[in-house]
Amino acid sequence: MAHFINERSGLVTDAIDGLLAANGGRLARLDGYPEIRVVLRAELDPSKVAVISGGGSGHEPAHAGFVGSGMLSAAICGDVFASPSVDAVLAGILAVASPAGCLLVVKNYAGDRLNFGLAAERARAAGIKVETVLVADDIALPDAAQPRGIAGTLFVHKIAGHAAASGASLDAVAAIARRAAGAVQSLGIAVSTATIPGSRPEQRLAEGEAELGLGIHGEPGIERITLPKAADLAQQMTARFSGAVAGSKRLALLVNNLGSATALEMQILTKAVLDTPLGARVVLVLGPSPAMTALDMHGASVSFLALDDAFEAALLSDTDVQAWPRARRVAAPQVRALPDGLRGGLEPTPSRDDAAAGAITAVCEALIGAEASLNSLDAKVGDGDTGSTFAAGARAVVADLDRLPQADPVALCRALGERLGRAAGGSSGVLMSIFFAATGSALSDGSSWPAALGRGIQRVRDYGGANPGDRTLLDAMIPAVTALETGGIGAAAHAARAGAAATAEMRRAGTGRSSYLAASDLAGHEDPGAVAVAIAFEALAAQAEGATK
Amino acid sequence: MAHFINERSGLVTDAIDGLLAANGGRLARLDGYPEIRVVLRAELDPSKVAVISGGGSGHEPAHAGFVGSGMLSAAICGDVFASPSVDAVLAGILAVASPAGCLLVVKNYAGDRLNFGLAAERARAAGIKVETVLVADDIALPDAAQPRGIAGTLFVHKIAGHAAASGASLDAVAAIARRAAGAVQSLGIAVSTATIPGSRPEQRLAEGEAELGLGIHGEPGIERITLPKAADLAQQMTARFSGAVAGSKRLALLVNNLGSATALEMQILTKAVLDTPLGARVVLVLGPSPAMTALDMHGASVSFLALDDAFEAALLSDTDVQAWPRARRVAAPQVRALPDGLRGGLEPTPSRDDAAAGAITAVCEALIGAEASLNSLDAKVGDGDTGSTFAAGARAVVADLDRLPQADPVALCRALGERLGRAAGGSSGVLMSIFFAATGSALSDGSSWPAALGRGIQRVRDYGGANPGDRTLLDAMIPAVTALETGGIGAAAHAARAGAAATAEMRRAGTGRSSYLAASDLAGHEDPGAVAVAIAFEALAAQAEGATK
Repeated sequence: MAHFINERSGLVTDAIDGLLAANGGRLARLDGYPEIRVVLRAELDPSKVAVISGGGSGHEPAHAGFVGSGMLSAAICGDVFASPSVDAVLAGILAVASPAGCLLVVKNYAGDRLNFGLAAERARAAGIKVETVLVADDIALPDAAQPRGIAGTLFVHKIAGHAAASGASLDAVAAIARRAAGAVQSLGIAVSTATIPGSRPEQRLAEGEAELGLGIHGEPGIERITLPKAADLAQQMTARFSGAVAGSKRLALLVNNLGSATALEMQILTKAVLDTPLGARVVLVLGPSPAMTALDMHGASVSFLALDDAFEAALLSDTDVQAWPRARRVAAPQVRALPDGLRGGLEPTPSRDDAAAGAITAVCEALIGAEASLNSLDAKVGDGDTGSTFAAGARAVVADLDRLPQADPVALCRALGERLGRAAGGSSGVLMSIFFAATGSALSDGSSWPAALGRGIQRVRDYGGANPGDRTLLDAMIPAVTALETGGIGAAAHAARAGAAATAEMRRAGTGRSSYLAASDLAGHEDPGAVAVAIAFEALAAQAEGATK
Repeated sequence: MAHFINERSGLVTDAIDGLLAANGGRLARLDGYPEIRVVLRAELDPSKVAVISGGGSGHEPAHAGFVGSGMLSAAICGDVFASPSVDAVLAGILAVASPAGCLLVVKNYAGDRLNFGLAAERARAAGIKVETVLVADDIALPDAAQPRGIAGTLFVHKIAGHAAASGASLDAVAAIARRAAGAVQSLGIAVSTATIPGSRPEQRLAEGEAELGLGIHGEPGIERITLPKAADLAQQMTARFSGAVAGSKRLALLVNNLGSATALEMQILTKAVLDTPLGARVVLVLGPSPAMTALDMHGASVSFLALDDAFEAALLSDTDVQAWPRARRVAAPQVRALPDGLRGGLEPTPSRDDAAAGAITAVCEALIGAEASLNSLDAKVGDGDTGSTFAAGARAVVADLDRLPQADPVALCRALGERLGRAAGGSSGVLMSIFFAATGSALSDGSSWPAALGRGIQRVRDYGGANPGDRTLLDAMIPAVTALETGGIGAAAHAARAGAAATAEMRRAGTGRSSYLAASDLAGHEDPGAVAVAIAFEALAAQAEGATK
């Protein structure tokens, strides 16, 4: 697979430049490319403790994406999945540490521990007050000597960042950060590995397999499982949480997209986790959101934090960091009744009008009679069902004739629209329904019949997307309605038939299935929808002539 | 590939339930599952025009994710990549339309046009004021009769939503929405197709290939290209924009992740687009962010909006919608100079102290002399370089002896730490560096030598992650420093040697390369780091003994 990059070697610096460009001047970087990649807040409050984090890249938005008010003062970016150098970390410390000192939030990986650790010692030697907190929230291996730091680190960033922004001392910021680190646990699940942009994907999982307890660098999971349904997966995963999390009555939950799980899946997983016994104790939910990713890994992690009032206030506090998954209180889903008037509404009062009934019957019988010939015509340019579509609508109307409000033109049009929409399938049914509904609404506004029909046509054009000359029923309908206004129904029928005939010479079909055919396949064949319209107008004209005789 | 779902048939309703659960009670839904999937704001202002959008699912966060203050009043969710039914749209209209009316924002697809269109007509028949705006921002085919509506629709949502929230009339909301729809253009690029959760992935692109001008439903692109570098891709793509966008001096840019492009790539692409001639006219940038996705498609789209003051104010206005990619003003990247004191800082003033120089020389010579034997020992339990690592550090120190501040213990420790960190590679070099730096800082705080060495050891434990008994140099170092306090250097040397010998009986290695070996492979072999420490203490003891003779 190709990737949207320039040079593989400039992956991280190019990406940081993109982050800076799209952040409205709130962020800056140090002039240390390519080795020193430090993103910092453009405006720092020198009276506040600085909070610094970082690590390998490939976890975006972590960590540079979390630099901002009430979160990180700076982020040190290593190469993809590699710890930043001691010099880079030291540069970050020297750049943002205030007289109040700085806290380093370090994920528990040997490289990060060592490089952040040595940088901290060097900074101390330079007279800077530095504290460090290690985050080791991964519970994949319950007895691991050195659990990894994964997405739960976000909680520590926010809680430490809020304490620092509130003016707490370094000792106090470090203390609450350590308390948060001790109160968070995380577990990951994935169905694919991570691919470094510029590299080729590796696939180590078979169809239907997933890895439980994986890391954020593509390292294998602790267990390979057949992925169960989301509800079962959530049960399995949440059952593994223990310690402070299992003992807490109030939890915060972060649902982290590891990269390329779809939003649909993430929302489903979030609901599934909230529906577990552990999930029932969640009062704040963060995400689902990409927070600590593993490039494009198709996976997710869930992190639980045992809440107290201080943590809760910190998680709910404001920040200008766009990527921060804002904490929301869990609320029972609000389900509202369907609105009145949706399903059918009031049936119109039936009424009798011989002229209307005669006209409707004439049109319907003509269309029913033309079913086979219209289908046959459509088979040459489409899928051969135009005749059946019109006939189905006609049959439904005839069957319902006595229940129609024949004497009330507005109600009659709406009722026809409603019945045609139900009886005739596909786009044609919807278009006929739109036509009659819009015509009825125009009549109710006081329009004349030709003007009202014109409104119906306009809506068909708007929603159907066809224009005159596109080989549709509009090519018969538009001339017919135009002729109706000046020449009456006989002229309309002539115009409709002439319009239908003209479609045989039209070389392009603007919409519908015919639009996929070549011009040569269309030549010489009339559009069956236009012919149906001509048949309808001719039936109306014949009926009107018969009535006047 | 497996997916995080329950039943394929419940994909959309399950996902909506997840969205509702994680939204703090701000959202509600209609009780119309499974056919009618309408998400609406829990609290609506009945004096304001309602703004409604929707379409097929699989584009999350669009559309339900954009329901909220100053954006959508409701979203109608179809099945994945399928238009919602007329009834569903009508239910949404009836549920949220106020006496002020409602605007439907419809992406230009036949199904959406028809179903939203008929629902609009039915709502009008029910006496509701309804306007519709079609968005057709895709420029993939410049002469397309019906351009698709893609991510540029987001601009219309926000601009219409802001107008409605500001109390504008339906006519005014519809007018500015139509103006926005006429001022936006979008183009997509992807390197993979979209996979519906529960289905198997299809791969129609060869390695290195990309599709330009694709749709958001996995439909093929207009052109298949060999993916160029991001900078060239941005040039090619932006050159295709025309009309209102090409003619505008002020643009807004939305960079939309179509699903699974990595954040690194999206940031790189954002920068590349901003660096083009068209990009140079961008004053507001939104994203990179998933906004109108195509499930897990690895791709991106860029949307440009020709700005005016009203659009700009609308895009910058606040909303409680988390998924809205907040508009930021484009700003020149701020690059700060590297902080002073980073690269070496002040070299310490050299000084002469015979005892210190003698001790240092003795230790270094002993370690250089033990290079081969330590390497050989390490070859049995590690990668065979422990001797060389210590010897390299020792040689660097000896070579620099006359430049060391021998008479200033604090400065001497720090200088040794700095040199060892540079000369000895890998974790060992960093750990030695940490040890001496921390010891020096403790001495400067007034600690005694044993206490200061104890602080150094503690930092090595903190950052290195090893504990006593883990088969590391700590197993010699800790007893040596403990003995030093009470018994002097001779006792320390004995304790170090005994500690090193004890490592041969330790069955687990807590950290480092030996941690990957089986207990049986370790048995009987001393840890080479611990032996090196013993050698160093023995050299110190011998040197002290010689000096006192």
